[in-house]
Amino acid sequence: MVLLGEPNPSFQSAAFTMLAPAGCRHDPAGKAGLASLTCEMTLRGAGDRDGRALINDLDALGVDRGESVGVSQVSLRASGMAEALAPALEIYADILRRPLLPADQIEAGRMVCLQELRGIEDEPSHKLMQELRRQHYPSPWGLPSQGEIDTVKRLTPHDVEAFHGRHYQPGGAILAIAGGFEWERIVDLVQRLFADWEAPDEGAQAPPPEIAPVTHIPYESNQCHIGLAYDSVPYDHDDYFQAWASVGVLSGGMSSRLFTEVREKRGLCYTVSASLQSQKERSAVFCYAGTTCERAQETLDVTHAELLKLRDGIKQNELDCLKARIKSSLILQQESSSSRSGSLAHDWYRLGRVRPVDELSAIIDAITAESINKFLEGQPPENFTLVTLGPEPLESPVGIS
Amino acid sequence: MVLLGEPNPSFQSAAFTMLAPAGCRHDPAGKAGLASLTCEMTLRGAGDRDGRALINDLDALGVDRGESVGVSQVSLRASGMAEALAPALEIYADILRRPLLPADQIEAGRMVCLQELRGIEDEPSHKLMQELRRQHYPSPWGLPSQGEIDTVKRLTPHDVEAFHGRHYQPGGAILAIAGGFEWERIVDLVQRLFADWEAPDEGAQAPPPEIAPVTHIPYESNQCHIGLAYDSVPYDHDDYFQAWASVGVLSGGMSSRLFTEVREKRGLCYTVSASLQSQKERSAVFCYAGTTCERAQETLDVTHAELLKLRDGIKQNELDCLKARIKSSLILQQESSSSRSGSLAHDWYRLGRVRPVDELSAIIDAITAESINKFLEGQPPENFTLVTLGPEPLESPVGIS
Repeated sequence: MVLLGEPNPSFQSAAFTMLAPAGCRHDPAGKAGLASLTCEMTLRGAGDRDGRALINDLDALGVDRGESVGVSQVSLRASGMAEALAPALEIYADILRRPLLPADQIEAGRMVCLQELRGIEDEPSHKLMQELRRQHYPSPWGLPSQGEIDTVKRLTPHDVEAFHGRHYQPGGAILAIAGGFEWERIVDLVQRLFADWEAPDEGAQAPPPEIAPVTHIPYESNQCHIGLAYDSVPYDHDDYFQAWASVGVLSGGMSSRLFTEVREKRGLCYTVSASLQSQKERSAVFCYAGTTCERAQETLDVTHAELLKLRDGIKQNELDCLKARIKSSLILQQESSSSRSGSLAHDWYRLGRVRPVDELSAIIDAITAESINKFLEGQPPENFTLVTLGPEPLESPVGIS
Repeated sequence: MVLLGEPNPSFQSAAFTMLAPAGCRHDPAGKAGLASLTCEMTLRGAGDRDGRALINDLDALGVDRGESVGVSQVSLRASGMAEALAPALEIYADILRRPLLPADQIEAGRMVCLQELRGIEDEPSHKLMQELRRQHYPSPWGLPSQGEIDTVKRLTPHDVEAFHGRHYQPGGAILAIAGGFEWERIVDLVQRLFADWEAPDEGAQAPPPEIAPVTHIPYESNQCHIGLAYDSVPYDHDDYFQAWASVGVLSGGMSSRLFTEVREKRGLCYTVSASLQSQKERSAVFCYAGTTCERAQETLDVTHAELLKLRDGIKQNELDCLKARIKSSLILQQESSSSRSGSLAHDWYRLGRVRPVDELSAIIDAITAESINKFLEGQPPENFTLVTLGPEPLESPVGIS
């Protein structure tokens, strides 16, 4: 396990982010959703606390918490008063290492997972983007962590125990802490809590790729939801920030191209956006637009044209805006112990080190319109995946099929 | 206009929140949605900048912005690097006082408003809570700011100009600034930008109350969404924090009653929550639960029973958890210039003064299980408004009809 810390004496708060290599790509065949159910079950009692005592003790610390299950990792986050850090870490050591996984609560846990799955059916934009990810990335990299109703129904307490035993383990685990704390004391505490955590053997993976470039999901509505994706470079790639800046020109501020062309000039939709999402080994740009059925074809065509137009390069004034936005957001991030702990953990996971803020600033400063355009020449937006959700399919723009 | 400031030299960021008395309750009869369209149009050019220049200049400052139209107020927020504060304020003075409201962009602005309205049709939980607010508060206090498709279609450039002239005005406007800035310099700047802002005459209001205790919205889905509301006391009431604490016991942490009874023990749904929402003159608790149709009746019954059970009072350990949570969140809020500027503005609007954090801490410290229970005895949850959205209506619990 890796421990990262960024103590800052001016903070009265402290936060930590814990990543464990227990994401949904480790779900065994026919057991999709197991990573999510296991995460849900770990909070139902751990160490010498039953579920009630565990939740009460965490709440009594006033800790704001959150869990999420990604493709590769499960992420546990907590933030609160600096004094709450040590006792919260003690409880989280139990959650990770000694959860009770009570068999008599498996049905309640399963119901929560099924309710979440069914809830997505009622959120068309969520459903669409989930399908776009599934269609764009080869399996298991695009799988939704919630699994499927049929597979979740069949999961057993034994499955949960086996998954926990195999994947909640120190190899690949990262604990990152930021805010008001003393480094030496935290090192001692983490030593005591985690030094004897041992790794089990790991199993092998065999992902079968199967991808469709165009998918339509029939859905009764007067709205149509459009998703477009294309490959980009992952976070540890030398050109990552060139790719990231090119997407910043597409989407982000109100002067960004998609906002200007799709929303402001044509009023085609209320929401349009693009974001570069990087897993460790792969990365893609995902675009979303939601609009009425009558305007859906035009929205798709205009959005697609804007993506293609990136190949003609970006302008200096677009880059200036983007850099101002990035500088602002770096400063705001520095002023939050919670976002700092998340950055530390994700840097380590994706780079194998923490990138200091000064280095990041220097990288941003060095980006030029020329450097972005050179990148876009070598790796233009192409090989799109298109998913639409609405009453009727749309006509695919030339080049997507 | 009121200017509030909380300079903090340890911040590199700064943020402001501007409230202007131009919310949707000022929409004239037959013109619902005018406040929203006007807000959308103010950003399409102001002072000597056309729409493009205005957006570019704001983006070039790297400012993160947001606008929202409430019942009484329109709220404009911006945050970024401390150096961006003064130039951003200059632009916002133009937006508020000298927007171009270009007639040739009214159709694009209208389309954006219509797209937002139609988008809500596809988000059942949003649609439900909007209807619950409309049914619970007498008109115009529960009106959705987006208006209605028919009325938005009829709005003219003249309507927008008239609304701006009448409601974007200094009487009732509040500008609150927090983060890294010097108070004297900001006072000088704000003087220069706003000292000669004059108030027009204000019109009268005649809200006709019409409320139904139970409403069902037919919606084809295998999900059912449930909303329940009951009256509470507004922010400036002596008992506000007693009411707020009682809702904190219902919803918030994982040990809260609704989470425990509805989600954890019975697995009835993925999301269940209650929140105390206070306008200036009135306030209510709004509860939401989304679940599958088969479990909807049980979810409603259990949720309603938990609300009624508040009358039996709360326990000391529930209060302890709640207090820890509140303390944490106060500290986290102190560390964000953006949330501070929002708190300053809303305190002034609702209290006529800013409540110092120390005073707030003292109020929280003084809350006891007895003080909450005394409040609940005098003002128990009752006179519920129920709205459901799904394929079939549910049976109303005893006492709601």
